[in-house]
Amino acid sequence: MQSAIQSLAALSIAPSSSITHRAATTFENWRETLSSVDPAPKSFELLKTLVYKPKTAKTKTPVPVVVIAREQTQASGSVVGKSLNLKELRPANNELLNEFFSISDKESLSPFVLNSTTYPKVLTVVDASIESSSSLFAVRANSSSETVFLSGKDVIAYLKALETDTVKIETLEFTEGGALSTSAPPVKEEKEDARIEGAVQIAVGVKKEVDFAAWYTNVLLKADMLDYYSVSGCYILKPWSFSIWEAIQEWFNTEIKKLGVQNAYFPMFISQKVLEREKDHIEGFSPEVAWVTRAGSSDLEEPIAVRPTSETAMYPYYAKWIKSYRDLPLKLNQWNNVVRWEFKNPQPFLRTREFLWQEGHTAHLTAAEADKEVLDILELYRQVFEDLLAVPVIPGIKSEKEKFAGASYTTTVEGFVPTTGRGIQGATSHCLGQNFSRPEMFNIAVEDPMRPQEKLYVHQNSWGLSTRTIGVMVMVHGDNQGLVLPPRVSSVQVVVVPCGIKGGTTDAQRTEINSKCEELARNLAAGGIRAKADLREGYTPGYKFNDWEQKGVPLRLEIGPKDIEKNQTLAVRRDTGEKAAVPLDGLVTSVSSLLTTIQADMYTKARDTYFSRLREITRWEDVVPTLDAKCVVVLPWCEREACEDDIKDRSARASGPTDERAPSAGAKSLCIPFDQSRWTPIEPGKTKCPACGHDAKRWSMFGRSY
Amino acid sequence: MQSAIQSLAALSIAPSSSITHRAATTFENWRETLSSVDPAPKSFELLKTLVYKPKTAKTKTPVPVVVIAREQTQASGSVVGKSLNLKELRPANNELLNEFFSISDKESLSPFVLNSTTYPKVLTVVDASIESSSSLFAVRANSSSETVFLSGKDVIAYLKALETDTVKIETLEFTEGGALSTSAPPVKEEKEDARIEGAVQIAVGVKKEVDFAAWYTNVLLKADMLDYYSVSGCYILKPWSFSIWEAIQEWFNTEIKKLGVQNAYFPMFISQKVLEREKDHIEGFSPEVAWVTRAGSSDLEEPIAVRPTSETAMYPYYAKWIKSYRDLPLKLNQWNNVVRWEFKNPQPFLRTREFLWQEGHTAHLTAAEADKEVLDILELYRQVFEDLLAVPVIPGIKSEKEKFAGASYTTTVEGFVPTTGRGIQGATSHCLGQNFSRPEMFNIAVEDPMRPQEKLYVHQNSWGLSTRTIGVMVMVHGDNQGLVLPPRVSSVQVVVVPCGIKGGTTDAQRTEINSKCEELARNLAAGGIRAKADLREGYTPGYKFNDWEQKGVPLRLEIGPKDIEKNQTLAVRRDTGEKAAVPLDGLVTSVSSLLTTIQADMYTKARDTYFSRLREITRWEDVVPTLDAKCVVVLPWCEREACEDDIKDRSARASGPTDERAPSAGAKSLCIPFDQSRWTPIEPGKTKCPACGHDAKRWSMFGRSY
Repeated sequence: MQSAIQSLAALSIAPSSSITHRAATTFENWRETLSSVDPAPKSFELLKTLVYKPKTAKTKTPVPVVVIAREQTQASGSVVGKSLNLKELRPANNELLNEFFSISDKESLSPFVLNSTTYPKVLTVVDASIESSSSLFAVRANSSSETVFLSGKDVIAYLKALETDTVKIETLEFTEGGALSTSAPPVKEEKEDARIEGAVQIAVGVKKEVDFAAWYTNVLLKADMLDYYSVSGCYILKPWSFSIWEAIQEWFNTEIKKLGVQNAYFPMFISQKVLEREKDHIEGFSPEVAWVTRAGSSDLEEPIAVRPTSETAMYPYYAKWIKSYRDLPLKLNQWNNVVRWEFKNPQPFLRTREFLWQEGHTAHLTAAEADKEVLDILELYRQVFEDLLAVPVIPGIKSEKEKFAGASYTTTVEGFVPTTGRGIQGATSHCLGQNFSRPEMFNIAVEDPMRPQEKLYVHQNSWGLSTRTIGVMVMVHGDNQGLVLPPRVSSVQVVVVPCGIKGGTTDAQRTEINSKCEELARNLAAGGIRAKADLREGYTPGYKFNDWEQKGVPLRLEIGPKDIEKNQTLAVRRDTGEKAAVPLDGLVTSVSSLLTTIQADMYTKARDTYFSRLREITRWEDVVPTLDAKCVVVLPWCEREACEDDIKDRSARASGPTDERAPSAGAKSLCIPFDQSRWTPIEPGKTKCPACGHDAKRWSMFGRSY
Repeated sequence: MQSAIQSLAALSIAPSSSITHRAATTFENWRETLSSVDPAPKSFELLKTLVYKPKTAKTKTPVPVVVIAREQTQASGSVVGKSLNLKELRPANNELLNEFFSISDKESLSPFVLNSTTYPKVLTVVDASIESSSSLFAVRANSSSETVFLSGKDVIAYLKALETDTVKIETLEFTEGGALSTSAPPVKEEKEDARIEGAVQIAVGVKKEVDFAAWYTNVLLKADMLDYYSVSGCYILKPWSFSIWEAIQEWFNTEIKKLGVQNAYFPMFISQKVLEREKDHIEGFSPEVAWVTRAGSSDLEEPIAVRPTSETAMYPYYAKWIKSYRDLPLKLNQWNNVVRWEFKNPQPFLRTREFLWQEGHTAHLTAAEADKEVLDILELYRQVFEDLLAVPVIPGIKSEKEKFAGASYTTTVEGFVPTTGRGIQGATSHCLGQNFSRPEMFNIAVEDPMRPQEKLYVHQNSWGLSTRTIGVMVMVHGDNQGLVLPPRVSSVQVVVVPCGIKGGTTDAQRTEINSKCEELARNLAAGGIRAKADLREGYTPGYKFNDWEQKGVPLRLEIGPKDIEKNQTLAVRRDTGEKAAVPLDGLVTSVSSLLTTIQADMYTKARDTYFSRLREITRWEDVVPTLDAKCVVVLPWCEREACEDDIKDRSARASGPTDERAPSAGAKSLCIPFDQSRWTPIEPGKTKCPACGHDAKRWSMFGRSY
């Protein structure tokens, strides 16, 4: 049999250290032994390996269950069996251990009994929290007198290396109550009425880089952001995500009120006749409109639409209310729900049949005033993304093909998801010009104050920002531990976790530690920081660390007896994992500044990634390889619609099989950035569009997109 | 011909004063003349009477148009003609004046040329703002040398007295732009696409006491609270009303967060199967459920309901999320729109097909904890009504018959509309007990922490407060000038209006007055008071007074040259009309305290009215007369459902023809007040229910209701 070290070396895993010591047969003396050797790692957790035998017909060969778990994890046979739906899981006897692993006692059990020979014959179960834990694990090597120290990730890496096409590791989330969870792929449609005792879906085992779509939904579930719902394409926004939306609402409301915008509420129903008033506009929406045709048991005389957007609902009243130039500008906004019955594969936050948004609708006397507002609002959208969500965006104008149905022009802030290399529209601010106000449309006119007796048709804008923002934020910042939240929108900015409470800790010490945690949280809260002490009983610090890491809380403060002694706390950043001792004196100030740093660093990191993937391209042959390298292509573009169609076709044909979840495998124009200074100046008449050879006008971003 | 004084005396109208003076043929010398006589009223406005002749076929007798308007009102023939749809309205010549009114010159024109003989032959048009103005009007009596001073109300009273069944006064709202409005009954269904040039509906001419329903909708329209919408039963909430909802939201959100409630968002769609899960519950709602059956051009496989409330949407997930007693309590709230497709006559805010509300849904480990929360929330609802909206309510419990479909019991805060004498449910907080959590329902259970292995079904509450609150507030406080807003929810608490700007005012003086107004508004705003200076040009102070009075702004500050001189402002309360000079020094403090007084006085006044209409009744024969006297009957009641049905039947039969807008002309139980100390103690076994003779249990409120 290969030694543990050899097995690890084959996978290029170097243990933090490896120790040979006197045989340790219980956890207590194992820990003691490890603590007494020199050099021992400063802190570590013990890893345990358990083997169970399920009830098996006498004629059949049993499939033992090997459980690899953290010391504190309650992984009894009944708990594991219940989750795996295996009957009467009993601890394996020495005979079975010998038969399967050629060892004679359970003290020699370790993850290293699993190898390419033994692994396929057993069912391997791993404690989900190992991989995401930041602890160092003491792992028995090949006997009770040999220990290697490994990170959780390395433990998992070792086990994963054993997986075959048919035999996979089962990852279970153990909770205090003994309820646990399986690593099966996420269930898209929960049976809404079936309460599966203690089983939910978790993210572990799906890496962001490997299966992005599964990672995304799993992170949302695991961070408690969202749940699936019994109506397809609709999702439940749980408090953890809704609070982010509230933070955005609060900030944006304050800003638009400064611009003189007032909130109002228009009905969600639109009569068919009204909805179909603007032909271009309705063409863009009609395939997705949900129709109410029945109330109680009566059929309605005519079907009524659920709003996909409110232009046609609102503008007849704008025509009625705007009687004189003195009634201008009229600036209304509403926060509401809209329905677009997508038939494509839905994705939480990004493509949902019902979503929440704000829609602003304004009417102005002059085109100049309307134009200015379009950009004022776009700037607020930029700030929502960059300043609140730490998500970099590029402001620009949409091509004619991509503009809003019925708009004169559409401006946008365009985001980017590095993992998939796809662009994503952040929010749009449209100038509608006089398209909706002209006499044959909604006829919204006043007497021109400059030319009495002459009618002036008002200049209109509409602009919207939706809960999609939250999805983009998750995609950009999340990692394999789960969500990473920017401090400005996180409903909990700092979590304080009591540590170092052991079997030997006295009640007085425990109370002291807990009180200290509460005191810290209270002081931080008094200083305007959203802090919380996690004093839940019956959960290990490791469990709590993992829990808050999954939920993306920006900063964790650990308080143990040593910290109290030294009047300090260990601060752990969620975004970088960096740890630093921070003195308790002046904590509000230092935490405040740390949160500011985290917010800035998250933005800078994401921005640097985005910018590094913006590629100035001047030859057609570079377009597809650049897209395939998960980059955004910036072309000196002719801005012709025919050329845009052509680019999409040619880049789609050239790329591989399309991903069903991706709306477009061909590249479309994302936007024409306002700031053109980033790229080589275009020489009019000389710089050519690399796609068609016509004269280039402006640098335009093309990319695959959501 | 009767003299003006005689005509007025016949109507018991006593002019403020009556003056004979030298003949005044122009407005200028009329005003001068009036100002020089002794005793002249301190301040007054001139009233003008104009006569126009519309284009009429030569063979026909013309119908002259008599316009009675304030001096500053632009009431040219073209403006009036446009509104009335009459062609070529020209000033009448002396021949016509003589023919119709037996006068020889237009200087003798006055409202008193209209009498029972002349009135039916002409079309009388009145400036809408006269009635609601607080000005004293100088009215020509029978010649240019005789003037009577009348209030606006008296002018209108005189004219109204001339009305016949077929000939009514036309009330027009003149605005600066010349656009104006007619007094036709409010249009319930606007042609949403027809922009009626310059015409909207106004409230003038409908008194609260005379036609309450028309008054109510007219006040809402005139105060710019709401507009009718092209889908029947749905209304547009304009910023003036939506801001009140925002104030309620902000306050209530803060309070429930203190109770540990978190906001979330559940989808608006509910599948048929899920909706119909709880039979009692769905029975209460199914006749009103709106069904989506089609998306784009595809029929859905099964119809999907638009939520009428979210119990059935949410509770399957409560079952899934609540895995252990550690997950309790779960307290979620959402602010959303719900749809109940009423087929009864809709009424803005009170009975609408879509409305906005919050719905809280909580789950608890113990019944005691749930019971406590029911009352904690009810107390918050009481505060919304009494402290924010200054609307008195009586907290109590609903009878078995009136409780929420599916609830264990329902608590309520019951309001009262004195003008109609009807009770109105304010908001309800329900204890659902285990009705939804039991195994055959949503099966929401945990292991009982006190008795391991035993299941404990959670105790649930749900509670809701809707935009109905706004309707109740309007009904309780509004008067014949329009809306009256309590300061705490008014988006403008104080309006500052520049006054005393006349023809002779220099630009410097005008600038000084306007600057002073701005300065005041700015200082008040800096002091946390929502203040606004109304510096609109081209509008008279009277127009502005009227405008803000209609909108219910609690306090008006007037600033004229004299005020600046004296370093003071004239403060006019909306609720009482009281005027008082207030020194500019310490204005923030004095205005603050005045607003507090207004808030308290509005509440006290409404509460005294409500309490004076609560009648302790112990004999059946007093019930219907008491209801007919617009009172709430408080009975020592047996609390039997059969008795409640009987009371309703007997009181309906006994009363007159039912009002279509009133859901119930029979009295139903409104609530059993928690505070029973107001009434004579019930002697168990001795005090009998006056309706049926059974033993009385508690004093219960019965009344006609909304």
